[in-house]
Amino acid sequence: MDVDIGNALASAASPGVPRSYLDRLDARVADAHERIERGMADGEFGYAALNLPERVDTGAIRDAVAPLDGAEAVLTVGIGGSALGAATLTDALDTEGEAYYLDNVDPAQVSDLLDDLDLESTAVNVVSRSGTTAETLANFLVVRDAYEARDVDWTERTLVTTGESGNLRDLADEHDLPVLPVPEGVPGRFSALSTVGLAPAAILGVDVETVVEGARRERESLAGSLYETPAYAYGAIAYALDARGANANVAMPYHESLETYAEWYAQLHAESLGKDGLGQTPVRALGATDQHSQLQLYRAGPNDKLVTFVRARDGPDVPIPEADLDGLDYLADSTLGGLRDAEFEATEASLADVGLPNVRVTIDRVDAASVGGLLYGMEAAVVLAGELYDVETFTQPAVEWGKEVARDLLRGADALDEKETLRVTRE
Amino acid sequence: MDVDIGNALASAASPGVPRSYLDRLDARVADAHERIERGMADGEFGYAALNLPERVDTGAIRDAVAPLDGAEAVLTVGIGGSALGAATLTDALDTEGEAYYLDNVDPAQVSDLLDDLDLESTAVNVVSRSGTTAETLANFLVVRDAYEARDVDWTERTLVTTGESGNLRDLADEHDLPVLPVPEGVPGRFSALSTVGLAPAAILGVDVETVVEGARRERESLAGSLYETPAYAYGAIAYALDARGANANVAMPYHESLETYAEWYAQLHAESLGKDGLGQTPVRALGATDQHSQLQLYRAGPNDKLVTFVRARDGPDVPIPEADLDGLDYLADSTLGGLRDAEFEATEASLADVGLPNVRVTIDRVDAASVGGLLYGMEAAVVLAGELYDVETFTQPAVEWGKEVARDLLRGADALDEKETLRVTRE
Repeated sequence: MDVDIGNALASAASPGVPRSYLDRLDARVADAHERIERGMADGEFGYAALNLPERVDTGAIRDAVAPLDGAEAVLTVGIGGSALGAATLTDALDTEGEAYYLDNVDPAQVSDLLDDLDLESTAVNVVSRSGTTAETLANFLVVRDAYEARDVDWTERTLVTTGESGNLRDLADEHDLPVLPVPEGVPGRFSALSTVGLAPAAILGVDVETVVEGARRERESLAGSLYETPAYAYGAIAYALDARGANANVAMPYHESLETYAEWYAQLHAESLGKDGLGQTPVRALGATDQHSQLQLYRAGPNDKLVTFVRARDGPDVPIPEADLDGLDYLADSTLGGLRDAEFEATEASLADVGLPNVRVTIDRVDAASVGGLLYGMEAAVVLAGELYDVETFTQPAVEWGKEVARDLLRGADALDEKETLRVTRE
Repeated sequence: MDVDIGNALASAASPGVPRSYLDRLDARVADAHERIERGMADGEFGYAALNLPERVDTGAIRDAVAPLDGAEAVLTVGIGGSALGAATLTDALDTEGEAYYLDNVDPAQVSDLLDDLDLESTAVNVVSRSGTTAETLANFLVVRDAYEARDVDWTERTLVTTGESGNLRDLADEHDLPVLPVPEGVPGRFSALSTVGLAPAAILGVDVETVVEGARRERESLAGSLYETPAYAYGAIAYALDARGANANVAMPYHESLETYAEWYAQLHAESLGKDGLGQTPVRALGATDQHSQLQLYRAGPNDKLVTFVRARDGPDVPIPEADLDGLDYLADSTLGGLRDAEFEATEASLADVGLPNVRVTIDRVDAASVGGLLYGMEAAVVLAGELYDVETFTQPAVEWGKEVARDLLRGADALDEKETLRVTRE
């Protein structure tokens, strides 16, 4: 990926980062890069994620998904990092068949989806690092029941991705299911480029080797200066802008197929950097659609946001058929892609015009290699930012409190005392 | 809808609103309510939206969609407010058939969708207030071409919703298409409860009269005090929290089918209140999924957010099949809904525990009447907030600048000078 941070400099934006500050920050980037390289070399927890392009065994993925060959759809049962990376890839890239995700615990969604699916031709991909994730196991039990109720052999259609032990591992052993290991030392939100993220894409015919190759090329660009490393330029500018009041981080791809990418980035960013009272709020947006929704606020509201555009240099296009339409002469001889590109340029200029900091991330195409590079680059950006913030990038301690309470409630603990109530109800 | 703002009071949260301040603010709410009632009585621009439950002619909608009876899918071509309200309804409610939306300008999306659709059984619903929206007209021309290329008569399958004049009106006249009027005096983002939002739902068998009836009941609850009006309680607390540093407004429904609702709310909020340097940043989230994505940040990051939960008291449920799973004893005898509800309660408590302001919005079920009430209530909340902020709630002047630039670019104007560049590229 390439990154243009010009519109986030103090010469263009307010808040903006002075070039002289960036030059000084670059010394910290060099130190952080050393730390990151050391973590990678030692396979330290979290840093190990950045080794995935060299470590992931796509041959093993191919072997594990071989028994599912011919599936016309894949239903992935997983939540958070066990679903989002995979969904980002299957939504972004052309697939042979449909990818579905049960990444919530919602009775209406589960029954509607199971009613609609032809289970005979649907593979199930169940993913949980621990093998004990409540939402995932509960959903999987319901899915398994549906296969049995319709006399379809789920054991011939199920792939398990999990750790060395736990319920899912036992289940796989018992029914002789294909199993993929979760990568060691890699938090869920950093697992898009591992077995976890790649398996559903592989089942649906995506060239996962090329995804990995794109990530590997991005990995090779990591160097000790933000001026040489697109990923570090992005991580450093986001960090520096947050300190100057840009406390929202808007991911705004200009491709419908990258909508899930923005959701993936929101998780990566929030869980990695949202700690110790720090962290920008990630916001998902989509161009051109959100020009008709969020742009009013971005341009005329508080200058407290960094807007990150993501777009491809090249891609498929569709000509706009000729028609004699009043006031729409400017569409003549254009294409849908041309219209989209003009809207992108205008929106970028429109934010620059009011000094709202924005960054342009460019990839070659929305294809396997470029998307692999984009995901790797953004992971490296977040790791770099974590070093600059000096937070524990790879843990998520704050989610444990609620998990424990939910378990207690299900075990029959009394309903929680509400902290404070002020109910306003309709007469 | 019912609203509990207890966890946003100063006694529970930081930032939080002192009860004494709320009491004083209530005098301004009374004045604002008078202003709103006057605007409604006079049918003033924008305020007229709050009259829709009495004004919308569902009979005319039924008549206009009658020729499309039997369609198995509806493809709506529209952008922003011309799509989001309709999508919120068709995603939230049970429909007979599928609803698709072309609400972007993206060549890959358009060709993939048209390749997949059985056009013979697909109705087209094209929506543009002005009849000249570039994205919508361009997409519609491509769609029409696809029907013609496959020898399917689009004129028998197309409904137009537009104003008194413009390209779409001319087209409808020329081909004798059914036409629905856009509601007078109602900005697009406030048009969910009008022809614009209701037509696709009506084609797909939704009981739109009940949607409107639910809105009407919510309309009757509007009174001159935030303590008596759930919608005003919400609008007032959001406003008061923004002033105290909660500059992000997170909509977090706990139903998968309300995911689009959060997107609708984000548009309503951003375009209405994002002006004059003011306006919270709307953030879309989804429970329980985003507990595994955003909760770490919400609990451990800066206390600069208001999190608004939306949930239903009642709904369908699915038992979790029995299984002997290590460490998951607490799932025994439970249901997917029970697990979801426990996770909701735990998450709400988890934010209250750290004093992050949060509000609980409760509806009876995710059904026609309650969703109609929810949309109306949130519109009234935003109108009230607009009065408190003293902004022009119903305009969106900041989006015009970019539209003009995009048109110039397409007409062949030179590429824009970039304000500032600092490109970092891979070696």
